[in-house]
Amino acid sequence: MASQHPVAPGRIVAIGGAEDRTSDLEILRQVFALAPEGQDEVAVIATASSIPDEVLPDYEAAFSRLGASRVHSLAIRDRRQAAEAETVRRIEQSGVIFFTGGDQLRLTNVMGGSDTLTAIRNRLKAGAVVAGTSAGAAAMPGTMIYNGAAADALRKGAVNMTFGLGLVEGLIIDSHFLERGRFTRLMEVGATNPEYLGVGLGEDAAVIIHPNRVLEAIGPGHVILIDSRDLASSNIADLAMGEAVAIEHQVLHALVNGHGFDIEARRYLTADALSTTLADLR
Amino acid sequence: MASQHPVAPGRIVAIGGAEDRTSDLEILRQVFALAPEGQDEVAVIATASSIPDEVLPDYEAAFSRLGASRVHSLAIRDRRQAAEAETVRRIEQSGVIFFTGGDQLRLTNVMGGSDTLTAIRNRLKAGAVVAGTSAGAAAMPGTMIYNGAAADALRKGAVNMTFGLGLVEGLIIDSHFLERGRFTRLMEVGATNPEYLGVGLGEDAAVIIHPNRVLEAIGPGHVILIDSRDLASSNIADLAMGEAVAIEHQVLHALVNGHGFDIEARRYLTADALSTTLADLR
Repeated sequence: MASQHPVAPGRIVAIGGAEDRTSDLEILRQVFALAPEGQDEVAVIATASSIPDEVLPDYEAAFSRLGASRVHSLAIRDRRQAAEAETVRRIEQSGVIFFTGGDQLRLTNVMGGSDTLTAIRNRLKAGAVVAGTSAGAAAMPGTMIYNGAAADALRKGAVNMTFGLGLVEGLIIDSHFLERGRFTRLMEVGATNPEYLGVGLGEDAAVIIHPNRVLEAIGPGHVILIDSRDLASSNIADLAMGEAVAIEHQVLHALVNGHGFDIEARRYLTADALSTTLADLR
Repeated sequence: MASQHPVAPGRIVAIGGAEDRTSDLEILRQVFALAPEGQDEVAVIATASSIPDEVLPDYEAAFSRLGASRVHSLAIRDRRQAAEAETVRRIEQSGVIFFTGGDQLRLTNVMGGSDTLTAIRNRLKAGAVVAGTSAGAAAMPGTMIYNGAAADALRKGAVNMTFGLGLVEGLIIDSHFLERGRFTRLMEVGATNPEYLGVGLGEDAAVIIHPNRVLEAIGPGHVILIDSRDLASSNIADLAMGEAVAIEHQVLHALVNGHGFDIEARRYLTADALSTTLADLR
């Protein structure tokens, strides 16, 4: 089946938070390795973070260790800064663009419609890698979750959603997924519209979203998928706000490092199957 | 398909913890209503609890309000007490036997192989209702979970299991399920042996297990089912202890009050279908 959601040639890497930044750098190493040949500058965008001065030096050190010729530390606090030509220029120079964690609503509120975001989309189309952790991962799709206590989810309206950065379509991403028990959030989203794949990223785990819309799990943690495409029934449309949502039939997968998933075919890929699927791209 | 796990004529009610004990008593009311005609004494067993003197008066007040002619408050602290003829006699008089929360390992350690447990099994066979909340629910099946941090689960060996009270077979029960994000625990158990249905009880939610092996969800909370019968693959047998478990295809349901599930047929029952299925029993 041909995808209705073509993606750009560049890879997206969505990380569940708390990735190793000081030791083996397992995930960050793979992010950097995806940069196009000869494009070894990295732009780190800390807009989501309330403590950019604490976060940016960690990533600067990590990417420098990995071989970046230059790391552009971009705090980008407001919409004026997101429109600055100098910021756009730094994005255009970078083979890796990285969004830190923090608050995804701060990220979209500052970046939405900005020249910097347009530049990032263009870089992705040109083959650069765009990565993000925690809030920076959650914000990547066309629609994102920005609030909703896991313990109260599965009650109509408990999950707050809005437009994300629009870098990938057809799925929704949640982070800190196993650690904060967020299964109910993606279950509720799946009931509202079963077309969209729920991607729950554990800490120190990530997915690479390849141009052929194949997900590749990397890192020591888990990537949980909640696939609602074959949802049989739900009462959600009949409920008042706050009432308990019933769900009949969602499919659950747990991916580990080296396993994958074909989004369009809705097919789980064990290590061998993933290698075969990705061989065409290399 | 005929069940290979015939259950006794009495109902089992497994409650996810934190059920209302002072206001509407929604779940406890339904527990009491399941008692056989004319058998309105209740035995409350607080063996699992480390604070029986605080817990027992609450249940005594609640069941008295609901119309119990007598509430037997049984702390049962050790194996000697679990063997006492007087305790056995109180169980034999009761139409409802109720296990409080606490530590399920304390419950099985004290009750396993005791005359009191034999008496409870005989009461269930004779049509009495056996209910339990939290640890008292988790301990009901032939096999139970007694430890395993949800955030660390889905790593081989992270979930500790042992024999339960053996009152129902073919499933495993976890409590405080949505509130403590315990999805990973039942996912791991399902990967170890896909035959057994995972039943995750939210707080102030419960399932009635009917004699025809149909589950009926009651209460304001959710009952989550993780059905691994059609598990496609998992790496669990190949892993070293502590390594990340991969899972391809488990089926997830969220039941609300009045919805049900046929364990043998592995069939979700919306309210109308459940009524039809249960009509034969009434």
